[in-house]
Amino acid sequence: MPAVPATSHPQDATSHPGDVEPDTERPDYTTAVVDLLGALAYGEITAFTRMAEDAELAPTLLDKVKLGRMAVTEFGHFELLVDRLEQLGADPEAAMTPFAAAVDAFHERTAPSTWLEGLVKAYVGDGIATDFYREVSRYVDEETRALVETVLQDAGHADFVVTTVRSAIEADPRVAGRLALWGRRLVGEALSQAQRVAADREALAALLVGGLAGAPTVAGADLAEVGRMFTRLTERHTHRMRRLGLTA
Amino acid sequence: MPAVPATSHPQDATSHPGDVEPDTERPDYTTAVVDLLGALAYGEITAFTRMAEDAELAPTLLDKVKLGRMAVTEFGHFELLVDRLEQLGADPEAAMTPFAAAVDAFHERTAPSTWLEGLVKAYVGDGIATDFYREVSRYVDEETRALVETVLQDAGHADFVVTTVRSAIEADPRVAGRLALWGRRLVGEALSQAQRVAADREALAALLVGGLAGAPTVAGADLAEVGRMFTRLTERHTHRMRRLGLTA
Repeated sequence: MPAVPATSHPQDATSHPGDVEPDTERPDYTTAVVDLLGALAYGEITAFTRMAEDAELAPTLLDKVKLGRMAVTEFGHFELLVDRLEQLGADPEAAMTPFAAAVDAFHERTAPSTWLEGLVKAYVGDGIATDFYREVSRYVDEETRALVETVLQDAGHADFVVTTVRSAIEADPRVAGRLALWGRRLVGEALSQAQRVAADREALAALLVGGLAGAPTVAGADLAEVGRMFTRLTERHTHRMRRLGLTA
Repeated sequence: MPAVPATSHPQDATSHPGDVEPDTERPDYTTAVVDLLGALAYGEITAFTRMAEDAELAPTLLDKVKLGRMAVTEFGHFELLVDRLEQLGADPEAAMTPFAAAVDAFHERTAPSTWLEGLVKAYVGDGIATDFYREVSRYVDEETRALVETVLQDAGHADFVVTTVRSAIEADPRVAGRLALWGRRLVGEALSQAQRVAADREALAALLVGGLAGAPTVAGADLAEVGRMFTRLTERHTHRMRRLGLTA
């Protein structure tokens, strides 16, 4: 079973334990990576069950199948993450548990009541999460980053959502106002749950702003960079809403 | 695109259209096979969304994953059936639609309210459906039968249900009475929806009792054989309930 990170870095605390003083006061890189993969894995399994459930709202069988296929893709990603957690010697269930409350709360507060709300959630909600995880993955080792990239890949379903939402707005322009509000609610809930996670999970937060023993990038981002990251996340969200024909 | 059935039979009306007089009064074998695959496909896509939804009731993450994996297997079967319907030149959506009302009604009337009810439904409900489709597939061509066998294969998840339900009963024997009632309700609803389908879909019913133009088995089952089939279905259901530690 390979140690963490499996790729060799000069600062790698696990493969060269003598190089870095064990610092019991400071969470280490391994904890941060297990947190990252655990959060992603819980997000994927939950996205799977929720999307499959939302597929029941589909107006046609074909639409149900499309959302179903998106859900199955998420399940496949979940299994990749679980495999990697096991490779790292982590217990996948223990790795996911700290993120259950925040992810569940997000979904409970954003349960779609219509098919279109479900589609916007699948596109916009996943989009925010994807952007955020991509930003975080800039500070991890190459192998972890490659896995994160794989599970965050859009399986080409976004076009289906964009086309469906745009033609619904064309058919009834009042739809746009309601869905724009819905998009703002999704962002608000996502950010508030992300804050909750950041406050709880010291290692994950430290990964972003540096200061982790054994991290391949010792510095992480400085606070100005964190600010720029949030600007980028907001810009990309606005871009997605615009693609749907909605005001962010 | 191969005709129906793709394997060659002496009575094959499609590949040897001259051999059989077109009989506009009698539904033909192609209609029956498309019905069979359409009913199965709609059953699989619905089982997928419902199981994924029921996975939300899981007491542990590991349990959620196991039911999730069962759901993903059903989705894979659904895709095989859709491919075959397309090969046969049928529109998958049109093939599934006639069975939507009955399948949806079954699920609406048997929405599990607990995790254990969900498991018993996955095992007992799927079991009845599987037995029934296997019986029907005795009267179809080899290629169709092979596909039906594939999609009906138990992916080895039954043991998980049996173990979980039995230990729940051990922990609290009162559970057995409630789940036994639940099992009877599942059977009752399944049979009543099956009757509805048989009354509506002449070709599917005719496949079972014979009299289809172009069917590989011209005779089908006689009425005594249909009676014996119901006896077999009931026996196997009783056997499954007993495996769970429940009275049928």
